[in-house]
Amino acid sequence: MVSNAKTPGDNAPTTAVDNGAKATSVWRPIAASRVSRRTVNPIRRIVDNLRVEPNPEKPVISLALGDPTVFGNLSTHDSCLQAVRDELDNHRTHGYAPSTGLESARDAIARKHTTPEAPLSAKDVIIASGCSGAIDLCISAIADEGDNILLPKPGFSLYETLAASKGIECRFYSLLPERSWEADLAQMEALVDERTRAVLVNNPSNPCGSVYSREHLQDILALCERHHLLVIADEIYCDLVFSGQQFYPMATLTSTVPILAVGGLAKKYLVPGWRVGWILIHDRANLLADVRSGLNSLSQMILGANSVIQAALPKILHETPDTFHNATIQQLEKNAKLSAECLANIPGLTVVVPQGAMYMMVGVQTAAFRDLHNDLAFTERLMAEESVFCLPAQCFGYPNYFRIVFTAPEDKLREAYARIGAFVARHRK
Amino acid sequence: MVSNAKTPGDNAPTTAVDNGAKATSVWRPIAASRVSRRTVNPIRRIVDNLRVEPNPEKPVISLALGDPTVFGNLSTHDSCLQAVRDELDNHRTHGYAPSTGLESARDAIARKHTTPEAPLSAKDVIIASGCSGAIDLCISAIADEGDNILLPKPGFSLYETLAASKGIECRFYSLLPERSWEADLAQMEALVDERTRAVLVNNPSNPCGSVYSREHLQDILALCERHHLLVIADEIYCDLVFSGQQFYPMATLTSTVPILAVGGLAKKYLVPGWRVGWILIHDRANLLADVRSGLNSLSQMILGANSVIQAALPKILHETPDTFHNATIQQLEKNAKLSAECLANIPGLTVVVPQGAMYMMVGVQTAAFRDLHNDLAFTERLMAEESVFCLPAQCFGYPNYFRIVFTAPEDKLREAYARIGAFVARHRK
Repeated sequence: MVSNAKTPGDNAPTTAVDNGAKATSVWRPIAASRVSRRTVNPIRRIVDNLRVEPNPEKPVISLALGDPTVFGNLSTHDSCLQAVRDELDNHRTHGYAPSTGLESARDAIARKHTTPEAPLSAKDVIIASGCSGAIDLCISAIADEGDNILLPKPGFSLYETLAASKGIECRFYSLLPERSWEADLAQMEALVDERTRAVLVNNPSNPCGSVYSREHLQDILALCERHHLLVIADEIYCDLVFSGQQFYPMATLTSTVPILAVGGLAKKYLVPGWRVGWILIHDRANLLADVRSGLNSLSQMILGANSVIQAALPKILHETPDTFHNATIQQLEKNAKLSAECLANIPGLTVVVPQGAMYMMVGVQTAAFRDLHNDLAFTERLMAEESVFCLPAQCFGYPNYFRIVFTAPEDKLREAYARIGAFVARHRK
Repeated sequence: MVSNAKTPGDNAPTTAVDNGAKATSVWRPIAASRVSRRTVNPIRRIVDNLRVEPNPEKPVISLALGDPTVFGNLSTHDSCLQAVRDELDNHRTHGYAPSTGLESARDAIARKHTTPEAPLSAKDVIIASGCSGAIDLCISAIADEGDNILLPKPGFSLYETLAASKGIECRFYSLLPERSWEADLAQMEALVDERTRAVLVNNPSNPCGSVYSREHLQDILALCERHHLLVIADEIYCDLVFSGQQFYPMATLTSTVPILAVGGLAKKYLVPGWRVGWILIHDRANLLADVRSGLNSLSQMILGANSVIQAALPKILHETPDTFHNATIQQLEKNAKLSAECLANIPGLTVVVPQGAMYMMVGVQTAAFRDLHNDLAFTERLMAEESVFCLPAQCFGYPNYFRIVFTAPEDKLREAYARIGAFVARHRK
């Protein structure tokens, strides 16, 4: 008898049976693959178990979603839309692009990101389906089941989802709130073993809103140099840094450590739904020929981004006025300042002032509260009583904090923070 | 000493070393993952080894690329472009779509494909990055390393690329040219064992251009019923069938066999670069709850298709005039007929008349030739002497045939076939 309906969860090896033998059993449920079952989004796992019913008497204000477009106060520039409209009218843009992306688009990305210290040309660029797709390609290309990679904690949950799906062990290095979320280098170094394939560095950071100094990035690179570790640099927020801060592409600070830097249109151009990301291969020490070839092979499986947007990339990247970007950053910086000021004044909360991106982590001093014993309880009750929704930082591997996305318009932010203040006052000891 | 620069190809397990010990060795090249190294596109492997320099005295005519837009004679309808333009102007379309796709888009796809025999609603649809992305999700969701799936031979090479990349064994069932490329069911059945997770059926077929009868599809389903096998139905060419043929969605012919049908915009709407595909989950016997959950989990890793195109899908699917589709099919059918007639008259070649899609397989009777001992030699010399390029069917696992893509304008096709005639005449015994 041949039955292929293995029971979900049952992956015990079975012995061969006669081929072609006629099956007589009834159908059993079809099991999903082990790979799909180990593909878990921690945010979903946590949020789906929260009781997040809002207070019906107050309109919901969600500061949870890392999508700058949801409120309508931040939108892409018309020149980006016009670039896409122009390409829609060109019948040649609707066919397949090469698997690593259109040459003109890769060239435009290279020209945008090349520097004297870390030069790039089109051959160093691979276009993917969003920055998520770029990160997926990088992890797939450099690590196998049983290998490990070092990830930041707190950190963007997709890294863990992607790695765990592939059976790659995630080892977490701590970011230190008292040092503006710099990495704990000694603890990071202690995680390294011979199966460590890469360190992922996210700068500026989601969920922290931190921007690393040149010195801190050099310290991380020195560690990678000592252990011959490749860096996956998630620099999707590269251009969103506030006054007094400077963003340093990691690749500009080393001539030996091989770096796969990932980025995309999503945040700077305010079009996360367009799904256009890329990998920049920085390999001045000629260590990545094999990885480059692996990335090329992997890119053939799915074919990355929409061809029309790819065709529009040269105009989007090189003709969008700086005034648009400056206005976005000014708005975000204003919101960050407002958020930090409003929340720092609330006893029982700890604010780490954001330096860039669009996120702020807020600590919950649980000892100061009567009945809010952790970040889950805090965010759940906040929603139930005040209809304000923030993600508990357990979603990012970091309990007793919550994350604020400060892209909402000022009046919404002020209203949310006033409600948080009232909520905290009611629950404080 | 800790060195993480394993040599490419070296995957021997190593023993643990002191964490934090300072490395003193020099950098070695970084190895690509085993997964990336087993990700191979057979077309690239074969074509990259062909000497495909054209005859400099004759302009190249390529009948190799399965992209209907390359010649400019087949282009999408302006109503599709207008639907996209309309959505570009709606600032709400630029944000993240849910990982399985916009509800409105999934509903539009369900309404397009629902039938009384195989009803669908939005919850049964998952949107992916192209039909390739949809196939990747299906294979990932139902099979693990060490499992096997049954694939057609000749068949679209991506199936093997995707499965082999995941360590899933590919077992090939033969399609029979003498029976218009129907599957050899006895041989298919002999391949089944308890690690077989699915049968992939591609109808209409790339590279064969075949369209299966209701009876043949029912025979395949009966086999799947006997062995409790899920079907992945690649129906991307579902609407491209010629006079006298009828396309039957597999899901309409069974009420028990679970079916994951995949499709997309690429071929019917002539926009392969847009990367919009989908999975239709047909599960009337309630066997796929676990697989559905696996597909949902996997869809969270990358986030499928461009949000603007997703927003335009209701209009694209439901408001594109039938006259556009009819004109496309008429053109393809005319080209198919012309191709079959021209090549059937050339002694030494065997033509299997296409019934749909945009492909035709042509057999090379190697015994009839002096110096063309297989399909590689045939296509290589044809390019070198006549500047006509066709893919050798070894790319599809089927030696001694070559594939014609008959989407070119009539004059180009006639010229190509005249050159093939002259080429054959020169090389025939």
